[in-house]
Amino acid sequence: MSHVPQTDAYLPKIVVLGGGTGLSVMLRGLKQKPIDITAIVTVADDGGSSGILRSELAIIPPGDIRNVLSALADVEPLLGELLDYRFDKGNGLAGHSLGNLMLAAMRDITGDFVTGVRELSKVLAVRGRVLPSANQALVLRAEMEDGSIIEGESKIPKAGGVIRRVSIEPKDAEALPEALEALRQADAILVGPGSLYTSILPNLLVPEITQTIVQSNALKMFICNVMTQPGETDDYKVSDHLKAVRDHVGEDLFDYVIVNNGEIPEQVQTKYAEKGAKVVHLDLDEVTRQGYKVIADQLVLFRTYLRHDAERLSQHIYQLVESWMFKKR
Amino acid sequence: MSHVPQTDAYLPKIVVLGGGTGLSVMLRGLKQKPIDITAIVTVADDGGSSGILRSELAIIPPGDIRNVLSALADVEPLLGELLDYRFDKGNGLAGHSLGNLMLAAMRDITGDFVTGVRELSKVLAVRGRVLPSANQALVLRAEMEDGSIIEGESKIPKAGGVIRRVSIEPKDAEALPEALEALRQADAILVGPGSLYTSILPNLLVPEITQTIVQSNALKMFICNVMTQPGETDDYKVSDHLKAVRDHVGEDLFDYVIVNNGEIPEQVQTKYAEKGAKVVHLDLDEVTRQGYKVIADQLVLFRTYLRHDAERLSQHIYQLVESWMFKKR
Repeated sequence: MSHVPQTDAYLPKIVVLGGGTGLSVMLRGLKQKPIDITAIVTVADDGGSSGILRSELAIIPPGDIRNVLSALADVEPLLGELLDYRFDKGNGLAGHSLGNLMLAAMRDITGDFVTGVRELSKVLAVRGRVLPSANQALVLRAEMEDGSIIEGESKIPKAGGVIRRVSIEPKDAEALPEALEALRQADAILVGPGSLYTSILPNLLVPEITQTIVQSNALKMFICNVMTQPGETDDYKVSDHLKAVRDHVGEDLFDYVIVNNGEIPEQVQTKYAEKGAKVVHLDLDEVTRQGYKVIADQLVLFRTYLRHDAERLSQHIYQLVESWMFKKR
Repeated sequence: MSHVPQTDAYLPKIVVLGGGTGLSVMLRGLKQKPIDITAIVTVADDGGSSGILRSELAIIPPGDIRNVLSALADVEPLLGELLDYRFDKGNGLAGHSLGNLMLAAMRDITGDFVTGVRELSKVLAVRGRVLPSANQALVLRAEMEDGSIIEGESKIPKAGGVIRRVSIEPKDAEALPEALEALRQADAILVGPGSLYTSILPNLLVPEITQTIVQSNALKMFICNVMTQPGETDDYKVSDHLKAVRDHVGEDLFDYVIVNNGEIPEQVQTKYAEKGAKVVHLDLDEVTRQGYKVIADQLVLFRTYLRHDAERLSQHIYQLVESWMFKKR
């Protein structure tokens, strides 16, 4: 079922960190390229189906991993649909995603969550590897500008305040060794797109993850969100996203920033504005002044929601990685 | 993954009716033979996970179908294990089998239970077809010797009484057209093994199913249980099983009866006796007098429970069908 030409040539190793819908959209594009993908996925979710399974079955919250498995799966569409199916009724079933339940079952069958993900990946003919950033569920905590503390990934954006800082509990959570190894081997490391405080930073706050990114010689890119997220990144410009990462991890992580500069129709902006979301302004001078190289292009599609144009975004990433690897030789 | 030699030769069409563990054990043997299998499965279950899904999601009870899918599946073992996995905790999850949940999801995704089973069969690379006997859930009702009425498949054996007669509600339930077509095309029709009143008769009581079996020119076999079942077939001899079918459907359905006559170790019998189960006595004279041909052999294996020796049983069935088809030519 492979759409990628079979080749014995070396495949660039790309590691992607994040969680949530944005990451899945990008991965559906990237998997069409002749690259070796590892997705390192956040495990701090505590809302919805994942939150219930996390507390009732003492499992690493599976929702973000399920999304990524679904994005990278290469099986007949129905198995993908099964993975994404969500029960809308049934006592204790309503709200659960079948894929989350499959991951919970796999954990029990194989005796270990990471092995369970690996084995389910085989069944789903996943293109690449999917790894949780840590082999334990993390708790995300936010200190708000007004001094209040909000605990729980799902509650932070709902608080509707201004986030000063997020942290994970336990602070010294150990990274999954396979995730670190993937980062060490990577030719390119991509962070984002995704919710800055609730999908991206929970990964980067695992100390060994960021240390390994810093030490790596890979090409490092930040894929910036197209729209601000209410309760998380209200009024953030592109530079504010980068600053938040720097402030949290104490390092300049990225060589490149990939951003959308395509115009977004007025009526789409109005629709988003009703939910408190605005276009992320590209303050190019500031971002460049901070030392980042910028790739800006028309990177969005509009259907019901704005989505990254997965094909175009992937093409930029692929070209960047290819030319960078060529220069390295 | 096929273990069956590929051939362009005509494959004998065998239709198997029943439900429950006995049927699954036999099918794991039969699927190794070069035959075309259709399993017609009972849909009167109302206990456990199936019963809950039946009432909460208004679905045909999936448990017996899941068992058969699992028996006929030809995928990597882990997908089979996923199908059979049962949650042991979680509010509303505990007790559910993941395969049942997958069938419930498939029903919603495809819009129809039978289509859902067919599509899940593809994902599982099922050898053959699995069909519910009717495209609606049935209610099983038992009239006991003491005149009381017990409603619900799962409650009947638990009542611990002597069953006089079972009936289905609605009495005129329509058979699934594909099931009737399979019976019309069949070279051989197998009934059993399985619970006489709660797995086998619910199928045969669908009027068109029995009419079509009667009209068929196929070779017809009854595979008798090895042990009696408490609350269902206490003290039943082989002839009592056959008489119960005759009494319910008003016809002599079978040409052959396949029974175990291998000895069952004393300590195994003792273990079963503790649960009220005895060896089904083969009253050969009576069965023969009633006009049935009998094939008796050592057909059981003993691990934790007694199980039909699937390979040996399948070999008898296959030889019988082959020689019968040869004579027909």
